[in-house]
Amino acid sequence: MLSRRNPQLNKHGELIHLLSIEGLPKAVLLQILDTASTFMSVNEREVKKVPLLRGKSVFNLFFENSTRTRTTFEIAATRLSADVMNLDISRSSAAKGESLLDTIANLSAMHADMFVVRHSESGAPYLIARHCAPHVHVVNAGDGRHAHPTQALLDMYTIRHYKKDFSNLRVAIVGDIVHSRVARSDIHALTTLGAAEVRAVGPKTLVPGDLRSMGVRVCHDMAEGVRDADVIIMLRLQNERMSGAMLPSAGEFFKHYGLTEEKLALAHPEAIVMHPGPITRGVEIDSSVADGRQSVILPQVTFGIAVRMAVMSTLAGNEA
Amino acid sequence: MLSRRNPQLNKHGELIHLLSIEGLPKAVLLQILDTASTFMSVNEREVKKVPLLRGKSVFNLFFENSTRTRTTFEIAATRLSADVMNLDISRSSAAKGESLLDTIANLSAMHADMFVVRHSESGAPYLIARHCAPHVHVVNAGDGRHAHPTQALLDMYTIRHYKKDFSNLRVAIVGDIVHSRVARSDIHALTTLGAAEVRAVGPKTLVPGDLRSMGVRVCHDMAEGVRDADVIIMLRLQNERMSGAMLPSAGEFFKHYGLTEEKLALAHPEAIVMHPGPITRGVEIDSSVADGRQSVILPQVTFGIAVRMAVMSTLAGNEA
Amino acid sequence: MLSRRNPQLNKHGELIHLLSIEGLPKAVLLQILDTASTFMSVNEREVKKVPLLRGKSVFNLFFENSTRTRTTFEIAATRLSADVMNLDISRSSAAKGESLLDTIANLSAMHADMFVVRHSESGAPYLIARHCAPHVHVVNAGDGRHAHPTQALLDMYTIRHYKKDFSNLRVAIVGDIVHSRVARSDIHALTTLGAAEVRAVGPKTLVPGDLRSMGVRVCHDMAEGVRDADVIIMLRLQNERMSGAMLPSAGEFFKHYGLTEEKLALAHPEAIVMHPGPITRGVEIDSSVADGRQSVILPQVTFGIAVRMAVMSTLAGNEA
Repeated sequence: MLSRRNPQLNKHGELIHLLSIEGLPKAVLLQILDTASTFMSVNEREVKKVPLLRGKSVFNLFFENSTRTRTTFEIAATRLSADVMNLDISRSSAAKGESLLDTIANLSAMHADMFVVRHSESGAPYLIARHCAPHVHVVNAGDGRHAHPTQALLDMYTIRHYKKDFSNLRVAIVGDIVHSRVARSDIHALTTLGAAEVRAVGPKTLVPGDLRSMGVRVCHDMAEGVRDADVIIMLRLQNERMSGAMLPSAGEFFKHYGLTEEKLALAHPEAIVMHPGPITRGVEIDSSVADGRQSVILPQVTFGIAVRMAVMSTLAGNEA
Repeated sequence: MLSRRNPQLNKHGELIHLLSIEGLPKAVLLQILDTASTFMSVNEREVKKVPLLRGKSVFNLFFENSTRTRTTFEIAATRLSADVMNLDISRSSAAKGESLLDTIANLSAMHADMFVVRHSESGAPYLIARHCAPHVHVVNAGDGRHAHPTQALLDMYTIRHYKKDFSNLRVAIVGDIVHSRVARSDIHALTTLGAAEVRAVGPKTLVPGDLRSMGVRVCHDMAEGVRDADVIIMLRLQNERMSGAMLPSAGEFFKHYGLTEEKLALAHPEAIVMHPGPITRGVEIDSSVADGRQSVILPQVTFGIAVRMAVMSTLAGNEA
Repeated sequence: MLSRRNPQLNKHGELIHLLSIEGLPKAVLLQILDTASTFMSVNEREVKKVPLLRGKSVFNLFFENSTRTRTTFEIAATRLSADVMNLDISRSSAAKGESLLDTIANLSAMHADMFVVRHSESGAPYLIARHCAPHVHVVNAGDGRHAHPTQALLDMYTIRHYKKDFSNLRVAIVGDIVHSRVARSDIHALTTLGAAEVRAVGPKTLVPGDLRSMGVRVCHDMAEGVRDADVIIMLRLQNERMSGAMLPSAGEFFKHYGLTEEKLALAHPEAIVMHPGPITRGVEIDSSVADGRQSVILPQVTFGIAVRMAVMSTLAGNEA
């Protein structure tokens, strides 16, 4: 049974789980971005460490493997002085037929404080948040096609860092929108933060028309999609998520939607280029653009650590 | 050459390795349970951390994979402030043909302080304890069919927590006794602590008659086995340890020996139900029992962390 | 483009990366050995911990798997109080087709402080050192057949510990020299430190004549090679690196070049026997020699931790 209240917030409206950007108030998003700012300086210190989560046990539960994302959470938690446990779920009891909820109940009984969950099934982090002990916080590190809220928050941090204000921004999200939890979370965050226009750009098979119901402008033509854009978010072509003959080929995709200097020239001259990584050069994005003046792909990674520290310390400070 | 003295104790009778419950004096068992009580409060603090093993190097050597058990030792050592090294033994030199003792000698030379060993061969932790450097302590985390002493200690902690005194207790251990190192260690612990009656319950193929030589009452009938019991310890059906046609099927086993509410009703009304985990619902135990009023399966997990902290800190305090 | 200056040294001649022994001044090698001496005492303390790398993020990047070597670096970094991140590279984005340099750029953006790199390609650590952010230090933990500088440094530490002075020493390196990065780094270190004679001993297929250009005496006869030697360094037979029919068989190799008590008797009576490990008893070395009075194989392991602590703390103290 789902409680009618947003399961991410306690009765004071404070964040206790981060499961999705959808449904979070603008004030909560801004508070995380502001907190992340303070952590940027920690990461530039000689001693990159604050004691905010000292003696807390953070469990990385990656039911779907992602070394990079797991590492960013491990670094963030470690710099907050937490004890981090990486569970190799694919080799654990979970794999031997134990149910997800029994695994969670067991780890909760070990006095876990936080679960960072990646799962191929949309909604798995909600299930966990609903059933874990009240003192445990859950962070969704990507669930199926549903949501990837920390990626969206670091994207918002990046945009705010370079563009200050959201209200006049035209943001183009380009590529495989339909399979992308990043796109979905970015759209919700941009809408909540008041971006002037959000465009979803790609072929009909990857950018269905019903995205318009999310308040998005759908563009099947790349030139139209990037023209005068202030921010271009390129997505990774997730071959492993695509079934059948949705695309002619990677080469064909690049020809139409890959971001080249020519296509980038159509955007605002100070437009920034973003990508959640890992990039596949020559498939979604040309090397000269990925490494170019307007690319903020590596700053995104840097901001990502601070944003995850902000999320974890915010959750740990709020009681269910 | 085996020394005549119990290799687990130093000349003062203090615990220096935990290899088996067999042969340990009652006072040593009780001391660990008492120490574990003090660690229960640490696990409920804001900062779940004490500096008892600070600067000590604890190596998890799991020659047989068990993510869950490894995690409990990692949490326990981390909360004692130790540095924990998880060796992926299956991919290491050991796998490339280096002998077990050469691996151990090498790790000892790195100034290891403690080895937590799981091995499919009975006796492997003894071999290691006999050959490692004198400053190194060994904890058996399960060896073959032989022993699982920390599980037995946490089981004893659980029983004492709910039942206070062992002397009037009837304890039924149900299932695959013959393959179970948990059962063997529990029987030794219960006998040492003076339980009134220990029953081994299961089919003839899994509960051989010669268990009687351990002072156990053998019951092939489930009703007889659980009648008036104060404690019921269900074991996991370890399919991977069973060869050939010992059992008709999981369904057949459940029908005769699976713990249902009906069968539980035969026990003492305040009987507690235990299980070392992971449970397989509908095979050894009915969901309604596993999640029911009398189940203490999750408290066992909680106590297990405190008990492992107690074992590690006790060993570290005693010199060979 | 390669800078003309040794990429391992900053403009003050201080070590900022450890990539190879070749080209390092004698003073730099001696400074590391002296620093390692001071860390030997740390490893014998109750609390094996100094705060020199507190709040630093050290990444173990093992593109080629080696649990043992990775563990020695993890222990060394942990005892310096660093935060250590072990990346399972074989399962990461790198494996999904991301380029090595993109992986490195990403980790640098997370404010990494040090990369410990093992790679099957000779030169990979150079490539990384040349392209990573200026605040990041790189330690080569073995690249292809090229170099294994920390092994050479611990070998030099061991020799100095037992023999004090290099200038009168005859050192025999025995076995598969041609495939061995250990041999190559040892030869450079011994030459720089002024050993009287370095001999490369083995069959023609494994010890080619052009090694003479490195100032080495080539011996295809074992008796000639070990006669009057003060130090004998046995190498591991790396079957996985050998192609085709270079050797008749392991038995044949042992007969001619395996170190037995008989052959050891030809060396100086106080000669020490070394091996980088893991040893394969009965292939390169007889058990009675490996475990004998003259073997210093386990002390090498102990010194190795102190030497790696010295390398890491030295690098961390020097600015690019």
